[in-house]
Amino acid sequence: MKNFITTQNWSRSELQDIVDFAIELKNNPYQPLLKNKSIAMLFFNPSLRTKTSFEVGISELSGTAVVLQPGKDAWPIEFQENIVMDGDAEEHVKEVAQVLSSYCDCIAIRAFPHFKDWDHDRTDSVINSFAKYSSVPVVNMETIEHPCQELAHILTLQEHFGDLQGKEYLLTWTYHPKPLNTAVANSSLLIASKFGMNVKLLCPSEDYHLDDRYLKAAKENCASEGASFDISYDIDSAYSNADIVYAKSWGCLSHYGKIDEQIANNNQFKHFIVDESKMALTNKAVFSHCLPLRRNVKATDGVMNADYCIAVKEAGNRKHVQKSMLSKIL
Amino acid sequence: MKNFITTQNWSRSELQDIVDFAIELKNNPYQPLLKNKSIAMLFFNPSLRTKTSFEVGISELSGTAVVLQPGKDAWPIEFQENIVMDGDAEEHVKEVAQVLSSYCDCIAIRAFPHFKDWDHDRTDSVINSFAKYSSVPVVNMETIEHPCQELAHILTLQEHFGDLQGKEYLLTWTYHPKPLNTAVANSSLLIASKFGMNVKLLCPSEDYHLDDRYLKAAKENCASEGASFDISYDIDSAYSNADIVYAKSWGCLSHYGKIDEQIANNNQFKHFIVDESKMALTNKAVFSHCLPLRRNVKATDGVMNADYCIAVKEAGNRKHVQKSMLSKIL
Amino acid sequence: MKNFITTQNWSRSELQDIVDFAIELKNNPYQPLLKNKSIAMLFFNPSLRTKTSFEVGISELSGTAVVLQPGKDAWPIEFQENIVMDGDAEEHVKEVAQVLSSYCDCIAIRAFPHFKDWDHDRTDSVINSFAKYSSVPVVNMETIEHPCQELAHILTLQEHFGDLQGKEYLLTWTYHPKPLNTAVANSSLLIASKFGMNVKLLCPSEDYHLDDRYLKAAKENCASEGASFDISYDIDSAYSNADIVYAKSWGCLSHYGKIDEQIANNNQFKHFIVDESKMALTNKAVFSHCLPLRRNVKATDGVMNADYCIAVKEAGNRKHVQKSMLSKIL
Repeated sequence: MKNFITTQNWSRSELQDIVDFAIELKNNPYQPLLKNKSIAMLFFNPSLRTKTSFEVGISELSGTAVVLQPGKDAWPIEFQENIVMDGDAEEHVKEVAQVLSSYCDCIAIRAFPHFKDWDHDRTDSVINSFAKYSSVPVVNMETIEHPCQELAHILTLQEHFGDLQGKEYLLTWTYHPKPLNTAVANSSLLIASKFGMNVKLLCPSEDYHLDDRYLKAAKENCASEGASFDISYDIDSAYSNADIVYAKSWGCLSHYGKIDEQIANNNQFKHFIVDESKMALTNKAVFSHCLPLRRNVKATDGVMNADYCIAVKEAGNRKHVQKSMLSKIL
Repeated sequence: MKNFITTQNWSRSELQDIVDFAIELKNNPYQPLLKNKSIAMLFFNPSLRTKTSFEVGISELSGTAVVLQPGKDAWPIEFQENIVMDGDAEEHVKEVAQVLSSYCDCIAIRAFPHFKDWDHDRTDSVINSFAKYSSVPVVNMETIEHPCQELAHILTLQEHFGDLQGKEYLLTWTYHPKPLNTAVANSSLLIASKFGMNVKLLCPSEDYHLDDRYLKAAKENCASEGASFDISYDIDSAYSNADIVYAKSWGCLSHYGKIDEQIANNNQFKHFIVDESKMALTNKAVFSHCLPLRRNVKATDGVMNADYCIAVKEAGNRKHVQKSMLSKIL
Repeated sequence: MKNFITTQNWSRSELQDIVDFAIELKNNPYQPLLKNKSIAMLFFNPSLRTKTSFEVGISELSGTAVVLQPGKDAWPIEFQENIVMDGDAEEHVKEVAQVLSSYCDCIAIRAFPHFKDWDHDRTDSVINSFAKYSSVPVVNMETIEHPCQELAHILTLQEHFGDLQGKEYLLTWTYHPKPLNTAVANSSLLIASKFGMNVKLLCPSEDYHLDDRYLKAAKENCASEGASFDISYDIDSAYSNADIVYAKSWGCLSHYGKIDEQIANNNQFKHFIVDESKMALTNKAVFSHCLPLRRNVKATDGVMNADYCIAVKEAGNRKHVQKSMLSKIL
């Protein structure tokens, strides 16, 4: 039994297999690969692409999806061990995971961090607790990583470039009025490095460094693929010669939990918006973003409407890679 | 590719085809006409009949329905063009429509007006934006018109009367404590006039006139079918000799956005309630309403429980006409 | 046509048939017994197990489930007869039940009491109103009884013990910080007595007696099966020699609607928590609970983690008994 929680537990060739089979499914979408299989999808946070692409994709493979929203239409859940449950939570993940395992063949989870204490949030306790007590595979629909987005990202880039080895990959922080989750940024580093690209992280300052776990993993992945990993604070040099520009906004970990300070920090760096003049510095790069994207805040209309913007294509590929991944693990 | 946004874009004979095939589906409900088709249903507002009848109907045709509630379980969406998205909306309809088009074969939308500015609301910007950017057909599940209700209305009336040409059709405003959407009233005028009935709109005063777009369309439809169109403020004469009484409450456009004034206005006209004495003035008319209906506010228990009340039958027919319509456009 | 609202309307042998067929379905889960059948599931309250087990189970039998949440994604509903509907409710159950009956083959309802007036709540007006106006079978997904849980309870106990006749069955009140619904406690008495067990109800005081309707039914069921029914206030003697310990917390009916008083009452009886020392008094009893369960509040980690805890197994059996029950009534 294999979970799909982080791509770090999967080899490059295993991930490539998923991507390759996604292309087959893209050409031949209706196959009964999940016949008599049901997937419980737990959303602790909102979703458009993930919910729709999973539900439609599962149906195209003859499977059944059940959507649950704990705390809204289902009971709030406790994740701490050995606790007297006299707070809000009505049941423990131990029971929830076991019961859902008896109903379904897979448990998929979207659980953003709580944005209070990074030391806690970085343990990714919700999905890891489910993985601990579940007897069926657990799938990450975005927690502090977003591995399904990674698969769609790679498929989309391979459709554009073919082989990605040695491509110049830029992950740039971009502006957003709120301090957002680091998940897609973490995932961007993990997957770009795993597929042998020269990875550059552009952010406003050291305050915006991603967690060491991900910087270290990216460095190691790059090293083992013979590629480079750099961090830059200079917009012009970072964009120059990039083949791929991926953008994401996140709240700085250095002020994690202090939302007003994070917002004040973000507000200093509105000029990180991805615009046409920055894109002009690149090696005719493609631009992508995981969506949702605030236009003219994270990226300009000009960039979003350009032919080099592959964000919508990447979102569309979510369905295919997820179908492929579910077929592999179920 | 054809959208189903307003019946004004469909000819009488095209609409009759949908109704005729709905009768076939009523007799033979399970046909794989939507096999390998998926429909994204976006609800910006609550629903009972629409949600259930679409979900069950799609399933009876072997299709897949995905329900989304933007702003609740999905991200809030921006509809204005060329805007700096620094408000609440996290993504632009341009991306949402394109992404959903890549997952699904149809996008169905329920989006009531905002009840602030009729000049804006009458543009029906939500569904029209989706139609603009979507590459799959868009279906109206009630915005400022309710064309699915129109189809059910016509099917139900034809089941009762056969040919509708020349029937005396009364749309009466009725009381409700809140200022409601004009959608079903607009739709009532559009469809009754399109099917050649003599249409009468009864409302408390000129303040309650529907938008000129719909009055004009109804007049033109009636003219081209050789039927009459009138507006009346006199309850007794309006009911007399009616074959069909259709009731709907709405907030007066003349005070649109000023809810307290609209409520005060409505409160003057509680006597517009449909009751047995008014129905006694008619030509043994049938009574209908789109539901939900507040009993003893919009219509009395006596009317709702009478044999001549076909509101529940009309609601039941929603499933059949929607299945038929989806089969035609997909 | 038969509703599944209370097991009191079903004979022991009819219920045994449902349980027996559930075992067949457990071994052979995928059968097209609900092909071309759709079930509307109305949730007035949250749910995890019920929603998931019904949705997955219906799908395993090739049926279609539609989930509705009146007051959230659907309109609020009026249940009183002959009322001027000028409050919050937008439509009457009479229309809702008839319309859903025209779309679906079954209406399943979760509607907890309002916790204000037990004289009203004990009429179970929501589900009984649906049953009155619906033309399709109505299923109870927990109101003031929880018959689906009863079926799962019996199946799980029979899997453990075989024949249940004459077993010593203890239903113990247990602590919870909030005054909860009596439904599962009522159901526990009904089903344990119906299956010929010697039933003991353990509660802190007469204040915690369940409604006379259920005490009387349990007494009568026990009498007709040649078994005993007792109420006890003494923890040690009640546990001694028990074969089965079933726990549930509820707010005392004697202070119904006065939540602060109910909470104060509950707080006196935290020692009713099911722990290992109490379980040691029994005849190597199994322990169960309907879930959700607050660990170390209602039962200790030690009890929940013990081999004799069959609560998760019972929850898992929900799917099988519900599939069996739906197959019987549809």
